[in-house]
Amino acid sequence: MLRERIRHRPLLDRVVTADEAAALIKDGMTVGMSGFTRAGEAKAVPLALAERARKDPLKITLMTGASLGNDLDKTLAEAHVLARRMPFQSDPGLRKAINAGEVMFIDQHLSETVEQLRTNQIPPVDIAVVEAVAITEQGGIVPTTSVGNSASFAILADKVIVEINLSQPVTLEGLHDIYIPARRPARMPIPVVTPESRVGLPFIPVPPEKIVAIVVSEKHDSSATILPPDDDTRAIAGNLTDFLLNEVKRGRMGYELQPLQAGIGTIANAVLHGFIDSPFHDLKMYSEVLQDSTFELFDAGKLGFASGSSITLSAKMYRKVLPRLAEYKHHLILRPQEISNHPEVIRRLGLICINTALEFDIYGNVNSTHVGGTHMMNGIGGSGDFARNGYMSIFVTKSIAKNGAISSVVPMVSHVDHTEHDVDVLVTEVGLADLRGLAPRERAQVIIANCVHPDYRDALRDYYVRASQRGGHTPHILEEAFSWHVALRDRGTMRSA
Amino acid sequence: MLRERIRHRPLLDRVVTADEAAALIKDGMTVGMSGFTRAGEAKAVPLALAERARKDPLKITLMTGASLGNDLDKTLAEAHVLARRMPFQSDPGLRKAINAGEVMFIDQHLSETVEQLRTNQIPPVDIAVVEAVAITEQGGIVPTTSVGNSASFAILADKVIVEINLSQPVTLEGLHDIYIPARRPARMPIPVVTPESRVGLPFIPVPPEKIVAIVVSEKHDSSATILPPDDDTRAIAGNLTDFLLNEVKRGRMGYELQPLQAGIGTIANAVLHGFIDSPFHDLKMYSEVLQDSTFELFDAGKLGFASGSSITLSAKMYRKVLPRLAEYKHHLILRPQEISNHPEVIRRLGLICINTALEFDIYGNVNSTHVGGTHMMNGIGGSGDFARNGYMSIFVTKSIAKNGAISSVVPMVSHVDHTEHDVDVLVTEVGLADLRGLAPRERAQVIIANCVHPDYRDALRDYYVRASQRGGHTPHILEEAFSWHVALRDRGTMRSA
Repeated sequence: MLRERIRHRPLLDRVVTADEAAALIKDGMTVGMSGFTRAGEAKAVPLALAERARKDPLKITLMTGASLGNDLDKTLAEAHVLARRMPFQSDPGLRKAINAGEVMFIDQHLSETVEQLRTNQIPPVDIAVVEAVAITEQGGIVPTTSVGNSASFAILADKVIVEINLSQPVTLEGLHDIYIPARRPARMPIPVVTPESRVGLPFIPVPPEKIVAIVVSEKHDSSATILPPDDDTRAIAGNLTDFLLNEVKRGRMGYELQPLQAGIGTIANAVLHGFIDSPFHDLKMYSEVLQDSTFELFDAGKLGFASGSSITLSAKMYRKVLPRLAEYKHHLILRPQEISNHPEVIRRLGLICINTALEFDIYGNVNSTHVGGTHMMNGIGGSGDFARNGYMSIFVTKSIAKNGAISSVVPMVSHVDHTEHDVDVLVTEVGLADLRGLAPRERAQVIIANCVHPDYRDALRDYYVRASQRGGHTPHILEEAFSWHVALRDRGTMRSA
Repeated sequence: MLRERIRHRPLLDRVVTADEAAALIKDGMTVGMSGFTRAGEAKAVPLALAERARKDPLKITLMTGASLGNDLDKTLAEAHVLARRMPFQSDPGLRKAINAGEVMFIDQHLSETVEQLRTNQIPPVDIAVVEAVAITEQGGIVPTTSVGNSASFAILADKVIVEINLSQPVTLEGLHDIYIPARRPARMPIPVVTPESRVGLPFIPVPPEKIVAIVVSEKHDSSATILPPDDDTRAIAGNLTDFLLNEVKRGRMGYELQPLQAGIGTIANAVLHGFIDSPFHDLKMYSEVLQDSTFELFDAGKLGFASGSSITLSAKMYRKVLPRLAEYKHHLILRPQEISNHPEVIRRLGLICINTALEFDIYGNVNSTHVGGTHMMNGIGGSGDFARNGYMSIFVTKSIAKNGAISSVVPMVSHVDHTEHDVDVLVTEVGLADLRGLAPRERAQVIIANCVHPDYRDALRDYYVRASQRGGHTPHILEEAFSWHVALRDRGTMRSA
């Protein structure tokens, strides 16, 4: 069995326990681990590391692709292993440590981490820990359900630990396309010209002697935590479908649309799910995470191809898709996140980018990350890579939260992740605001009329009218701009702030 | 004389007066005019249009490359010709109309306007007005001192008016490289792989029958309004030079650095000027506007090549460079702003991007555009294209303004153009903050220690300490975050806000 998974024979001698492998990680090291949106993370070594740290404290900088599954970020945070963490996380336990100032979290555009590593602008990765389905005859590492930053971590690190996960099906082999941009000034154009373009290798090429330890695991990926569509997410999907249909009718694109990107989470997944009952067809995705909706669209015959950096599914969909992976494989590619999120490819392909906002303001600035302007939720992830460089940047959210105590549309966002320059379309269950070609004063009127919950519409219009009387390209009353957030903090509701 | 300039003979019949040409522009039209950073704008037709509008009112949407010279934006605004204006301006008169809500200004990333036009996401250009040094035998339009958006305007518009400017030297011919990305899905990689790459035509290819009128003019470009280096800008340049020198010593790059981009204006120009006395050599520029410093670096033997979208010089440098253009020409390219500012090329070449901040905050968010959070200065220009996609994103500013009544470093910027994710290095005359790989709480400490004017340092540290006691990844006291701006507005100073 193991000989099928470790096909470069000399490496069979490197199989060790997770504890032995974790012992290679020393205090103060920078460790680059696989894992992107709870898919394909190294599982045994970080657990062993947390266990060891309880007796023998140590601190590391942990870099990954994006978020980890199996509560690993929680476990590592609770064992006080993490001094620094980048470029993304989504764990409530780790979030608490970040917001307490105990863990230094560097919240980066997901395409940029390995660029900074490659040019030595941030401290180097001492050791990479990468989950794999197999090691090829030549010693190439075949990733599992995500690529993330694994390839560059393994290529740039001095030492590599591989976790062979026997629960990950061997049919994953052949799915990956590992292309790494050359160092400058020798860098050439990235040859990806369609979502289907295969331009690299189906494995991560590393000299086998760099693989210092191999650990065998059997733990499954965590399943996605997305909620099923509800009335509001169905309304959001309906508003967006109507809008895109109108774009087709105006001759701006065909029924195959432009390639789609959708951010992680319940709402973006529900929006894509909504395309099942739309007249769109022969869709393609060029995205970072492929969720349930990707496979629902495949099964509905709506989707022709999907490129991503990871596959993250609900438990039900996981059981359905993994055994049939060979059928889907010809319509799928998993790429390094540097390529799935690369500004060059995003602009070239002309993506329709659908991401989730925590809140947005009357001028279309978007907060994706900070509750109350101060407390980190997950991180900006790839939303900035896509929103800045795509063909059309769409942000979706429900108009209210916490039973209406929070309006998702506010006078001024308490933290800006996406500026008005990068936001073309806003969608809530109430309606849609098409902001293309509009000046701020016009944006405010469209957003207030179309996207705001009726309970908050008058108050927001009142703010805008009073602000605009003071003049300015982007009218505001600075001493009142955050009054809704302050009211929420102090009184538990934004109502009648 | 005119036969040398209009080499496609049948077009000699199309020469008309500026008034006759301006009569082709009708009320409600969208007009795309040449002009980028006060260089190469159409001069005679817009003046004739303003003149006509005083008797016979009309409104248009005016698109350009960037800002116009010869007070054209002022004249057009005063004649109430402008209903809408995009994607950039820098005129005090127009600014006033924008801030009064009389002109709808759409403030865009400079790489994006023609993408939106090409895909019909914004209303089409009805008529293009392009300044040229010549029309070739085949009818190709040879631009003058800027390319900007002229090529796409001319290609996409139904009708083109050409202004042949006899004061622009014929030696400009051969300087331009007109490459226009194909419509999707046929779009291929942009073949620019070095600043020197020539990938297109030396003229704008249009069917000659689209050229409906030719106007002859002789008006010079306006000279740049940049101020000479002063003690503060010299200190900023010194701080940045020391930093880059240290990057070289750490082996991150060679003395030739990475290709440089520098934004328009006094401070960025002074910073580049400062490289004359540095040990750097064989520098290259891949920028949008080439200012005096570009030619000073050429003359000092420091600069090997410069690619831009325009040449904007002081009166003195203008008189010096234009007669010697043939000497410089082999080291210069002018490109469409879509290419000079293209995310694909910016990321590939790995630019060091130096842009000017109006203010920045303790976490490194940058405001480039809005005074007091509400009133537009010029526009974001290309700074977002470069800051998001470059190798290293540097923002420079003086630590105080208005004799110290304003601190350029504030608790929270009153408007965000560049988020902390896109800001690597901040420089004032006080010092430099290297923010790479730092979490927000670390960024605050480095910025407060290194960049803030001593008069404001204690107050800013006090804010940060009190905010951080409340917790959060990015600590703030929302009700106090804009108190410095409010104090400035109400009391005329940020001191002891």
